[in-house]
Amino acid sequence: MIKRELFFEPEASAEVVNEAYRALEEEMQSERVGYYKLPESDMLSKIEDFIAAYDFDAKGIKNIVVIGIGGSSLGTRAIDALLCHTPQRNGRKLIFLENVDPVEIKTNLDGVVFEESFFIMISKSGSTIETTSHVKYLIGHFHAPVESEKFRNHFAFITDEGSPLDLLGKDIKVPVFHIPHNVGGRFSVLSAVGLLPLTLLGYDTRALLEGAKSLKDSFFARNEDILVQKGHYYATHRETFPINVLFSYASAFTAFNAWYVQLWGESLGKIDREGKHVGMTPVGIIGSIDQHSFLQLLIEGPRDKTVTMIKVVDFQTELQIPDVSLPHLEKTDYVNGHSFNKLIDAECDATMESIIQQGISVDKIEIGKIDAYNVGYMIIYYELLTSICGHFLGIDTYNQPGVELGKRILKEKFKS
Amino acid sequence: MIKRELFFEPEASAEVVNEAYRALEEEMQSERVGYYKLPESDMLSKIEDFIAAYDFDAKGIKNIVVIGIGGSSLGTRAIDALLCHTPQRNGRKLIFLENVDPVEIKTNLDGVVFEESFFIMISKSGSTIETTSHVKYLIGHFHAPVESEKFRNHFAFITDEGSPLDLLGKDIKVPVFHIPHNVGGRFSVLSAVGLLPLTLLGYDTRALLEGAKSLKDSFFARNEDILVQKGHYYATHRETFPINVLFSYASAFTAFNAWYVQLWGESLGKIDREGKHVGMTPVGIIGSIDQHSFLQLLIEGPRDKTVTMIKVVDFQTELQIPDVSLPHLEKTDYVNGHSFNKLIDAECDATMESIIQQGISVDKIEIGKIDAYNVGYMIIYYELLTSICGHFLGIDTYNQPGVELGKRILKEKFKS
Repeated sequence: MIKRELFFEPEASAEVVNEAYRALEEEMQSERVGYYKLPESDMLSKIEDFIAAYDFDAKGIKNIVVIGIGGSSLGTRAIDALLCHTPQRNGRKLIFLENVDPVEIKTNLDGVVFEESFFIMISKSGSTIETTSHVKYLIGHFHAPVESEKFRNHFAFITDEGSPLDLLGKDIKVPVFHIPHNVGGRFSVLSAVGLLPLTLLGYDTRALLEGAKSLKDSFFARNEDILVQKGHYYATHRETFPINVLFSYASAFTAFNAWYVQLWGESLGKIDREGKHVGMTPVGIIGSIDQHSFLQLLIEGPRDKTVTMIKVVDFQTELQIPDVSLPHLEKTDYVNGHSFNKLIDAECDATMESIIQQGISVDKIEIGKIDAYNVGYMIIYYELLTSICGHFLGIDTYNQPGVELGKRILKEKFKS
Repeated sequence: MIKRELFFEPEASAEVVNEAYRALEEEMQSERVGYYKLPESDMLSKIEDFIAAYDFDAKGIKNIVVIGIGGSSLGTRAIDALLCHTPQRNGRKLIFLENVDPVEIKTNLDGVVFEESFFIMISKSGSTIETTSHVKYLIGHFHAPVESEKFRNHFAFITDEGSPLDLLGKDIKVPVFHIPHNVGGRFSVLSAVGLLPLTLLGYDTRALLEGAKSLKDSFFARNEDILVQKGHYYATHRETFPINVLFSYASAFTAFNAWYVQLWGESLGKIDREGKHVGMTPVGIIGSIDQHSFLQLLIEGPRDKTVTMIKVVDFQTELQIPDVSLPHLEKTDYVNGHSFNKLIDAECDATMESIIQQGISVDKIEIGKIDAYNVGYMIIYYELLTSICGHFLGIDTYNQPGVELGKRILKEKFKS
């Protein structure tokens, strides 16, 4: 159960709202944008068949190593961090090879035994330099040549059909799962990119897809005016409010915030049809921690931010603050006998009220409990909101031309 | 060795630069602002005496538990994350009780044995509600009443002299280390707040202070025009560039980025003398990971950001990318036989060049290697830069009045 509320006045007319519904319908029906259909794809069945046939338990697989960067890792990271305290999570260790930082690579592989590990190489283009370099390193480090049975039995590839990596997989008979061509990396977590590792960690990925489907269906049934209004407000006020803060009240949202930052920043930071630089800057913060950090800037700094509060109603764990009175600290006794759950809940409400009192545009997302269904819902919520903003900004939400220049310069640096 | 370079044109006249030197000197000499003197304080000697007398090894202390939030935890977190791969780091586990999230508290204390743990409760005011609640929970959870020998032998307090926590410590004979009154939480990492836990983890905290002292001395000898120019540029262009991005090319900087966000946001987000909301929004990102996330927004999004690149020259670990050519992926072979060190280095340079080509205001900080001395230097670098910006913004850099409203509302929520 997820409740949503806007504390600012929606401004789009019925016609403008309908135009956004139509635009996203057109994206879906023209097959130009593929993420809308991921909740109904048959990929999960294929993955379940693969997992059953491979028999990971019998093979003693203890580590799932995801080799990927950006859209190939952030979504899985976000969902695992949200769900890792739920009973579904099995004991397998999840390891990411993401940055090309030598210290980090060494630390991440410390103690990893090849025979106990399953490696998932993820690259939409198939030739991401960070990811291919990691795999080359693994080949050398574990003495597992790419044509060997050793390699074949411990790797899967996730990539676009027809990519160089797809061709390699076919040549050497490594299982390959495809990312639909019309699904961009940052919109791919509900494809094999997220479904393979997350299913291997024990999660109910079927419920994840169901949660996503429920909001998607509601949207295309045109019951989500509140979502369209929010996107419209953000896009039309982008010069007044160039920064959109996501203030999540649970530590488990830290990686979700990072996923949001990529989705939002890379989708909306664009040159529009008139050649103008547009977009909004995403910032993710965590309550109550960042009440002691970013909050002062929100309250007294420039009025250039919108704020979305994420509140968790049921943490599925309750801890009491005992009725202990510390000499000289009696003024803190007002929380005695209450739970930490009540404290973080009250902090969220109090902070939200103090921000609203400043006249800042706030909305709230209240999540019953953090489970796979609700996480799927939150994923598609932000994906749809991104598409809506992109529509109102008049940009191509789904490309990322700005990063190509750096890639070209990089190659030149190795020529000299 | 740390080198710094601005890729934008400094704009302050010699007189304006001197005015900034004078303003910070006045802050230091008037004793209004205390962090400038932390590198020369005798606190570290006191801490070393305490550690020698307590004999942590003989007592079998395996866990250092820091109970604190915001300025009481972010600095220690940042420095430990930067240095934890260096040989000085001993095997003790560092645990933070920070958020009041019940799931996180439970996870953090999982497997923690009281007798093997030393708890450092940190609160400048002495009555931070998150921190006092955590300590009450520990008292109940471990059956260690506050007046007991058990409690006394496993706790230290760090707080202001005369605070309620200081009075409690004196009553129950728990060792107390003081934060100078004129050192704010977010400027306190070089006080006992950071020095006690970091020394207990084996770090050369004396070198940390020396690194800080070297830049501070250089600044007050008026040899740091480049630093003043940067602060002046940021402050005077705050309406054009309301966002200051710190783009650090090493995963170890993730927590340092978070420390920067608090320092910058909470210090500079203020109502100025004329009643105007001023300040700049800090954003911390990590290379090469965020080339696949935030970079698109930097390159094509609104021109509202400055960028500081942090580059590490010597990772003190070298990893080679083997000369492995993968069929169909031959176009990635340009990195073969090179090191990951060279790759991340070249990615940093290539990204920086691509950003500069966009006309974005960039500067670079190049760190020889990440050691205690250079980390101390980086800490005071950002503290001084913050003070300089605050001077040019005409604000009180050292208070945080904006967070009080939320605290008042919170208390009311427990009355009903």
